[in-house]
Amino acid sequence: MTEKAACENIIAGRHPVKEAILANRSINKLLVARGTAGAPLGEILNLARERGIPVQFVERSHLNGLVKDVPHQGVVAVAAAKEYVSVEDILAAAYPEAPFLILLNEITDPHNLGAILRTADAAGVHGVIITRHRSAALTPAVAKASCGAMEYVRVARVPNLARTITFLQERGIWVVGACGTAEDLYWDVRLDGPVALVIGGEDKGLGRLVRERCDQLVRLPMAGQVSSLNASVATALLAYEVVRQRRQVHGRVPDR
Amino acid sequence: MTEKAACENIIAGRHPVKEAILANRSINKLLVARGTAGAPLGEILNLARERGIPVQFVERSHLNGLVKDVPHQGVVAVAAAKEYVSVEDILAAAYPEAPFLILLNEITDPHNLGAILRTADAAGVHGVIITRHRSAALTPAVAKASCGAMEYVRVARVPNLARTITFLQERGIWVVGACGTAEDLYWDVRLDGPVALVIGGEDKGLGRLVRERCDQLVRLPMAGQVSSLNASVATALLAYEVVRQRRQVHGRVPDR
Repeated sequence: MTEKAACENIIAGRHPVKEAILANRSINKLLVARGTAGAPLGEILNLARERGIPVQFVERSHLNGLVKDVPHQGVVAVAAAKEYVSVEDILAAAYPEAPFLILLNEITDPHNLGAILRTADAAGVHGVIITRHRSAALTPAVAKASCGAMEYVRVARVPNLARTITFLQERGIWVVGACGTAEDLYWDVRLDGPVALVIGGEDKGLGRLVRERCDQLVRLPMAGQVSSLNASVATALLAYEVVRQRRQVHGRVPDR
Repeated sequence: MTEKAACENIIAGRHPVKEAILANRSINKLLVARGTAGAPLGEILNLARERGIPVQFVERSHLNGLVKDVPHQGVVAVAAAKEYVSVEDILAAAYPEAPFLILLNEITDPHNLGAILRTADAAGVHGVIITRHRSAALTPAVAKASCGAMEYVRVARVPNLARTITFLQERGIWVVGACGTAEDLYWDVRLDGPVALVIGGEDKGLGRLVRERCDQLVRLPMAGQVSSLNASVATALLAYEVVRQRRQVHGRVPDR
């Protein structure tokens, strides 16, 4: 049953879903039919809560549309198009280079996330950190928008970005957030050491708590009528400023 | 009849279409039903050719779907969501500043064109030049992707980009193309004078003729597995390098 139901990142049915969670597969979210009850489902919901997997309640007809060949028993797991890694994995992979990370504060558009992963690959970023909730996840749409780069970029998913910032700061990483009201322009600050760039979501920018935790805020110069740049464009400008400064200072070059 | 048919940038019927062309409205393209004939249509096709308006032959049923309330008589004009300007208009608007232009060599994705217009607005670009054929035009989808910036950016449409490059060079503008195989990195060349940046289309990059006409080619450093950046990201990196260099040299600042 698992075999058949596993097409297209969809894992359907109580037993297969439970096994996928226990096997630590990267799961973007659980979909649970409204009104479904019973002990097995309760166990799955508990497991999901423990592991921080988002749960979404939907109409049963929605699951019927997703899963045609097998009984879904009211529960479906949408597996990630690529496995997530941990923040520690990213730091380990950076060594012995100075870590270069990108943190995304609720980027919701899969096109933007894909474009950011493509840029992250090109700029030699060691890893991208996204939030577990209110964020685009690693889906086939993101893979496509990344032009294949998703395969090569480490992505970690965290429950709380502010806490992750503190974790990174304790490890000597300078955390720089992009914020339209910042004093400093991005090319006037030093970005050649261990650095994490923080980019806000499309609508809201940086959350208050995240903004307050940053070591430094920088802005992009805006000459025109519209008050902000596309999130993937802003990310690229900051990331390539890091690349430029690292080359100037270290003479060492992330380049093909 | 014209009134009713004019909803949503669609102008339907022989007389309204002819009037729109004669009135110099910015028209993205003409749609003509296959098999339509007659002297009035021939006159419209001649006018379209003279003015360089792209003509596309489609099934009559397609026009029936587009135009519900009035007889379309086999011909429809899709008006631009915003009026185009001429290259001369852009140069006049730049004065007395050193012209700063972006030339797009067949960008076909409306999302990319929209993001580029948003960046052009933010970077203080005087105008964007696109090609008449094989290029996304100024449509409502582009307006949306530009986050409203389309309203503020001058866009000219030309039949032949290589010829436009020569025209700009004769007026003292340095033409710099983005090309993955170039020797120089974009931050190592001088971009603080009168400058036109040339960006290639999503699939093919710069055309051979366009590439050969450029005064200089530059590349973006690529550290990863994927060999190119998104076209709107590449445009933004080059455009903001121009902004950075102009600030450093002139101390004068395109900023809000």
